[in-house]
Amino acid sequence: MIPPDHPRYRSLVIRELLAENVKKGIVSLEGLTAQGRGEAFDYFIGERTTASAILAEKTAAALLLTARHPVISVNGNAAALAAYEIAALQKASGALVEVNLFHRTEERVHLIEDLLRSAGSDIFSGPAERLLPLSHDRAWCRREGMFSADVILVPLEDGDRCEALVTMGKTVIAVDLNPLSRTSRRATLTIVDELTRALPNISEACRTITRSEREELKSSLDNNYLLSEAIREMTMRLSHALD
Amino acid sequence: MIPPDHPRYRSLVIRELLAENVKKGIVSLEGLTAQGRGEAFDYFIGERTTASAILAEKTAAALLLTARHPVISVNGNAAALAAYEIAALQKASGALVEVNLFHRTEERVHLIEDLLRSAGSDIFSGPAERLLPLSHDRAWCRREGMFSADVILVPLEDGDRCEALVTMGKTVIAVDLNPLSRTSRRATLTIVDELTRALPNISEACRTITRSEREELKSSLDNNYLLSEAIREMTMRLSHALD
Repeated sequence: MIPPDHPRYRSLVIRELLAENVKKGIVSLEGLTAQGRGEAFDYFIGERTTASAILAEKTAAALLLTARHPVISVNGNAAALAAYEIAALQKASGALVEVNLFHRTEERVHLIEDLLRSAGSDIFSGPAERLLPLSHDRAWCRREGMFSADVILVPLEDGDRCEALVTMGKTVIAVDLNPLSRTSRRATLTIVDELTRALPNISEACRTITRSEREELKSSLDNNYLLSEAIREMTMRLSHALD
Repeated sequence: MIPPDHPRYRSLVIRELLAENVKKGIVSLEGLTAQGRGEAFDYFIGERTTASAILAEKTAAALLLTARHPVISVNGNAAALAAYEIAALQKASGALVEVNLFHRTEERVHLIEDLLRSAGSDIFSGPAERLLPLSHDRAWCRREGMFSADVILVPLEDGDRCEALVTMGKTVIAVDLNPLSRTSRRATLTIVDELTRALPNISEACRTITRSEREELKSSLDNNYLLSEAIREMTMRLSHALD
């Protein structure tokens, strides 16, 4: 039991939520460490959505809405943290939701699919094949799902998988709190924001941006600018700590 | 199995080591998230010991060597990551080694004590009492151990425990990769470095610094300067990413 007078109560409660999901088999142990990395980077952007992240989230909405075959790729951490936000984004964007795991077992895939379904997502499932040019379990995906997608939203993705998808010619939208990561640098569009803040913002933009705004957002997409702004924000906050 | 061609192979292997120690009951699930936070901050200082961290480590040696009753407080993460380094520091400094846990059970205390013993530490053990002014399990310690200590090294400590120890008049040496944390700001001396790099540096300094150097290091201790240097280092590395 975490005492409510603990100054980092909220952060510790989220850790406990993830710990419970480890016990259920949804989150991998390695996923907990990844969550901690995210927490540290979130700390540096002030645990809030920055102006450049809002722009990235609107651009993500534009890419999803104008895609031929958009897919949201979900892993254990994303499902544990944001199952309801994923279901809402599916409704707003019309994208397929597909489970893809780094630490893959059939049992974990089914547990995560069940969690997402219970939160309201319509899951694209069925037999997976080793279709991506990668050496480990993340090579698996479904021919009519991620493999055929033109636009893929990958929350909390690892670097080599992101790279493989970009190399295959896909438009990759990453949600990654580390603006220096390989995923951030290789993605077509990187949203440097915490997942449960980012997804509702994308859904909201899906519901509100006009057709002409979509084209404008897409044509002015500059991922280097978005990453630089995130780094600038972190640098500024660190410098202020010196005052 | 992590494929050896994965670009973050080393980091993933450490995560697996910790994951194994979760299964053994040494590391708490929440400890994995804390490890991830540390990894992110380590990334910002370039995953190496900075010049100001070396100064902090020498000062830590001076404080331990001149203490009346020095104690090294060990938790699950510290034991899993650095059992051998802790044993070596005990030999070099003559400090007591005492296990203190945030997520405390008698069973975890014994498992961690056994791990430390097998790596060569002489453990100060026995019945604990609720002696610290804190609302949760970390209030427990031993009257002749941490409670009586004048100098305490707390690797990977949480903020309110650090604060309680300082309020009790103790000299607290923290090892914390986040220079903005409450632990870092409240400690008498903060070493902003990764644990398995920091501890051998303190041991080495224990063996080499002279008596007059000890006094000089102690009298010139300026924790604000050390924290500012760490923040400056992180700011500089982030700014370079913008080039």
